[in-house]
Amino acid sequence: MKFAILFGGNSYEHEISIVSAVVLKKVINQNLEFIFCDEERRFYHIPSEKMNSKTFSTKAYKKEKELFIKQGGFFSKGFLKENKLECECVINLIHGRDGEDGKIAALFEFYSIKFIGPRLEASVLSFNKELTKLYAKSVGVKTLDYTMVRKGQNSKEKLSFPCIIKPARLGSSIGISIVKDEKDLEYAKDVGFEFDNDLVVEEFKNNIKEYNLAGCMINDEFVFSIIEEPKKKEFLDFEQKYLSFSGHNELIEANLSEELKEKLKDSFKKIYNPLFKGALIRCDFFILDNEIYLNEINPNPGSLANYLFKDFSTTLNALADQISLEKMIKISYNFLHSINGQKGKL
Amino acid sequence: MKFAILFGGNSYEHEISIVSAVVLKKVINQNLEFIFCDEERRFYHIPSEKMNSKTFSTKAYKKEKELFIKQGGFFSKGFLKENKLECECVINLIHGRDGEDGKIAALFEFYSIKFIGPRLEASVLSFNKELTKLYAKSVGVKTLDYTMVRKGQNSKEKLSFPCIIKPARLGSSIGISIVKDEKDLEYAKDVGFEFDNDLVVEEFKNNIKEYNLAGCMINDEFVFSIIEEPKKKEFLDFEQKYLSFSGHNELIEANLSEELKEKLKDSFKKIYNPLFKGALIRCDFFILDNEIYLNEINPNPGSLANYLFKDFSTTLNALADQISLEKMIKISYNFLHSINGQKGKL
Repeated sequence: MKFAILFGGNSYEHEISIVSAVVLKKVINQNLEFIFCDEERRFYHIPSEKMNSKTFSTKAYKKEKELFIKQGGFFSKGFLKENKLECECVINLIHGRDGEDGKIAALFEFYSIKFIGPRLEASVLSFNKELTKLYAKSVGVKTLDYTMVRKGQNSKEKLSFPCIIKPARLGSSIGISIVKDEKDLEYAKDVGFEFDNDLVVEEFKNNIKEYNLAGCMINDEFVFSIIEEPKKKEFLDFEQKYLSFSGHNELIEANLSEELKEKLKDSFKKIYNPLFKGALIRCDFFILDNEIYLNEINPNPGSLANYLFKDFSTTLNALADQISLEKMIKISYNFLHSINGQKGKL
Repeated sequence: MKFAILFGGNSYEHEISIVSAVVLKKVINQNLEFIFCDEERRFYHIPSEKMNSKTFSTKAYKKEKELFIKQGGFFSKGFLKENKLECECVINLIHGRDGEDGKIAALFEFYSIKFIGPRLEASVLSFNKELTKLYAKSVGVKTLDYTMVRKGQNSKEKLSFPCIIKPARLGSSIGISIVKDEKDLEYAKDVGFEFDNDLVVEEFKNNIKEYNLAGCMINDEFVFSIIEEPKKKEFLDFEQKYLSFSGHNELIEANLSEELKEKLKDSFKKIYNPLFKGALIRCDFFILDNEIYLNEINPNPGSLANYLFKDFSTTLNALADQISLEKMIKISYNFLHSINGQKGKL
């Protein structure tokens, strides 16, 4: 399988995505192409040997070949004709906006490009934490109780403290505050409103245990990673969360009973199937009094959470093998013919 | 305001969209461009005088200039350079898949093209009738009780009859059946599963009153159409529903108390604001025992429901005037610089 990794994007996680791609390059030990989406949403074909941070931070990437999306793939302009970038499957590794909000999924679905990543509907439901809660409830998975605070609306609901305030549509802990008492509330809301008009407010539970489980469905069978209990301070910040992709830390399976492990996997299955088919996702769960709560869905986890899998490369190739394109609808023009017959020339 | 109308798409409503565009051309009495998306999802620039059904049913459109989407707009290839199609705002008039499922919204948001139509998140929530129900509930608008029937899953819930079975993701009455007793159930499910893996089943209420209300928000003020009580047989079929765009039928405001009219408008506002900003939508409601129920959201109504408005052209221009593009995120590369400092060359 010849993969291309798509990374960058007009996203607060643009730089994280570059790191994520550089790490994934080392992990996937096969012939790869690299497609960079810059902050202006132009695509560039990056040669493998130039996949380092300097290429991007100095904007040297602008000297590389620009790529355009058209039906069937990515193309560059040649002297006499357009050249198609050879690749069988694109890995969507843009984190946050563009990559996880549904834009890239829509482009690939529209232009019939095979890809690993959440489809359009799955992207929208996992990108917005409020929608994630509605979706989880509809498939029978619990989430923590919450209140929405919206820009420009005077909320009548009384918040209790300590609480955690999160912009509805951002990952990577950006814009999140823990508010210990009322006097810090306005500032935390202002911080959140810098990033989103909708804020999700949950009770802050200091000693809550978090567990991460990644996986995907391949021909109706689930492949799961180990269950990780991420280390944390109050909550993971930007750098901590992402330097972990490279698998520098030794990884130990979480110390949980078999029963709880099965419960986590069952919840994962309910979330994944069938909405997330085609993607390799990570679900972050809480466990409280032996009950499972979904915290968030990460539909393009950093470096696709390779460090959690025993045989990541085999999983990725098998996943790609069975992804198919959206079925095209055939247009007959029978309706136009029939109304022309009835009503005269349209 | 120079508009371009985008129509067609790989959708069961492809032909309807052509009719919708031909009708809208007659209604908008100003300089217009026409962009056709054919069944293979290629774009063509159609000259105004060729906007008739024959151009499409005979595939004569293939002789017209092909257009490509790139940052900032639609372009055609010229002899020495690319030519940009001059237009200030695109009206998304693709009905059903592509136009209403979020693909076109995503393309336009990604490529910074100003458009009238639902944004990405609004598209996904209104395209899927199950998600529409979850969304309506979350903003405090009632919908009829329902059961989901999913392909390949043995539903344990007992259905009662008569019921109406609808594919979750299609408009225009396609794939919908009214099932009067159990013996017709399997056939109706098969019909529905031709179009979608998820079916919404509701109790069929024979004498339910339906009311349609269209509108949009312009600078924080709502502009509403008149409230229409559509004529119907058991339910509107494909041709009936769409031949109505052209406003051949005389239109009479529904006979409702002022109180119920205000209730309908209040429900519309809850659905619209802020999710549907930038779109002119039609909400179809039921009234049962003086209570309002949302039936469905039509985010790109046929010919934009022009026939319901007193001064459609002014509304459309004012709506377009205040639409802005998604704010771009500026990338600083501070993070890449900082981890390079800490960890050596990445």
